[in-house]
Amino acid sequence: MARPLSRERFAARLYELRGRYWDTHPFHLRLHSGGCTPPELRRWVANRWYYQLCLTRKNAAIIANCPLPQVRRAWAGRLAYQDGTGAEGGLADWLALAEAVGLEREEVLDERHVARGVRFAVDGYLHFCQTRPWTEGVAAALTEMFSPDHMADRVTAWRAHYDWIAPAGYAYFEHRIPVAREDSARTLELVLDHCVTGAQQQAAVDALAFKCEVLRAMLDAVDYGPQR
Amino acid sequence: MARPLSRERFAARLYELRGRYWDTHPFHLRLHSGGCTPPELRRWVANRWYYQLCLTRKNAAIIANCPLPQVRRAWAGRLAYQDGTGAEGGLADWLALAEAVGLEREEVLDERHVARGVRFAVDGYLHFCQTRPWTEGVAAALTEMFSPDHMADRVTAWRAHYDWIAPAGYAYFEHRIPVAREDSARTLELVLDHCVTGAQQQAAVDALAFKCEVLRAMLDAVDYGPQR
Repeated sequence: MARPLSRERFAARLYELRGRYWDTHPFHLRLHSGGCTPPELRRWVANRWYYQLCLTRKNAAIIANCPLPQVRRAWAGRLAYQDGTGAEGGLADWLALAEAVGLEREEVLDERHVARGVRFAVDGYLHFCQTRPWTEGVAAALTEMFSPDHMADRVTAWRAHYDWIAPAGYAYFEHRIPVAREDSARTLELVLDHCVTGAQQQAAVDALAFKCEVLRAMLDAVDYGPQR
Repeated sequence: MARPLSRERFAARLYELRGRYWDTHPFHLRLHSGGCTPPELRRWVANRWYYQLCLTRKNAAIIANCPLPQVRRAWAGRLAYQDGTGAEGGLADWLALAEAVGLEREEVLDERHVARGVRFAVDGYLHFCQTRPWTEGVAAALTEMFSPDHMADRVTAWRAHYDWIAPAGYAYFEHRIPVAREDSARTLELVLDHCVTGAQQQAAVDALAFKCEVLRAMLDAVDYGPQR
């Protein structure tokens, strides 16, 4: 078994996975450069809804696998953030985005646009969080180390390229960016504190790499085009 | 709860899913019409290897979930068929196909060409068979009702269009076509015998539809192209 890395080297090893994050996927590059058509943008939003729907379930699975009350308590805030009250919260914000890009609420909720490849990737992520140690589920969430800058770029790029998107659509990103910055710092601390053996550290790195594959697989399926 | 269909109508309902089988997927249409390049054909073979690897595990999961010895006994033949002795059997035949299309054995075994979308779809299929009642796992296998004709078409089409493929590569299809014809008749009997309530019949139809989605999702990922 490999000897554990120092806290700093382990953090650096996790951060190296930045290069596998989905900001460099061809679809996101096109999305941010103004190269997407309105139907493509709507397809991205409608597919990403399926991921949004999964988040509370995967977070609850992490809590279900965790024997430490202080960790469970900290993680539980994510459930309230995403599900919200119905009128507000992450899901409501995503539906507002859907409307702002011209989707009817019904065609989002009935998942008619969700590509099977997106479904398999997101279901795989949920299954991962249900069946792996909670530390791996938490490590997989570390993509949020990379997401605030990516979301901030998106808001700037969309305002420049897609002026037809109603301003109310930006609420999700505006709410999420500062929260993700704070969450990711705490999530990294959790991983550094609780993954201490060489094997646990490697499992955390693998979990974050797996999560990057989930995200990229979603974009592969969106980029492939409407379901055939 | 819906009233159960007659045996004949239930069989017909299952057979209707023929239209969702992967023979009509754009990639298979191109593959059989001679429109694939050698690298595309190799990508298909190398990706499909990951599915071949899953088959014994999903069949064992079905057996693990089944309380009926006579069903388990009948299903166990599939394990021996696919894993074989190493020198022969389904896996060995697939590796022979891989070599016949110009892949090195090593690049198949190390899964370097396996697209993440293929991985998520196949893993989803395995998870389905692990977690659902054995009758649903068996119903999902009913795509083999549709596969013999499709494989026979493939052999004819490839011989016509891809004369560079070494003849030894056809062993998988030549062995599998008659076995699938026999297996599928028995598999259909199992489903018709053991799915007797309206709910069980619907679950069987849903399982077969799910399996069609697994197969098509694999082709979506292969058709999308090399991993980015």
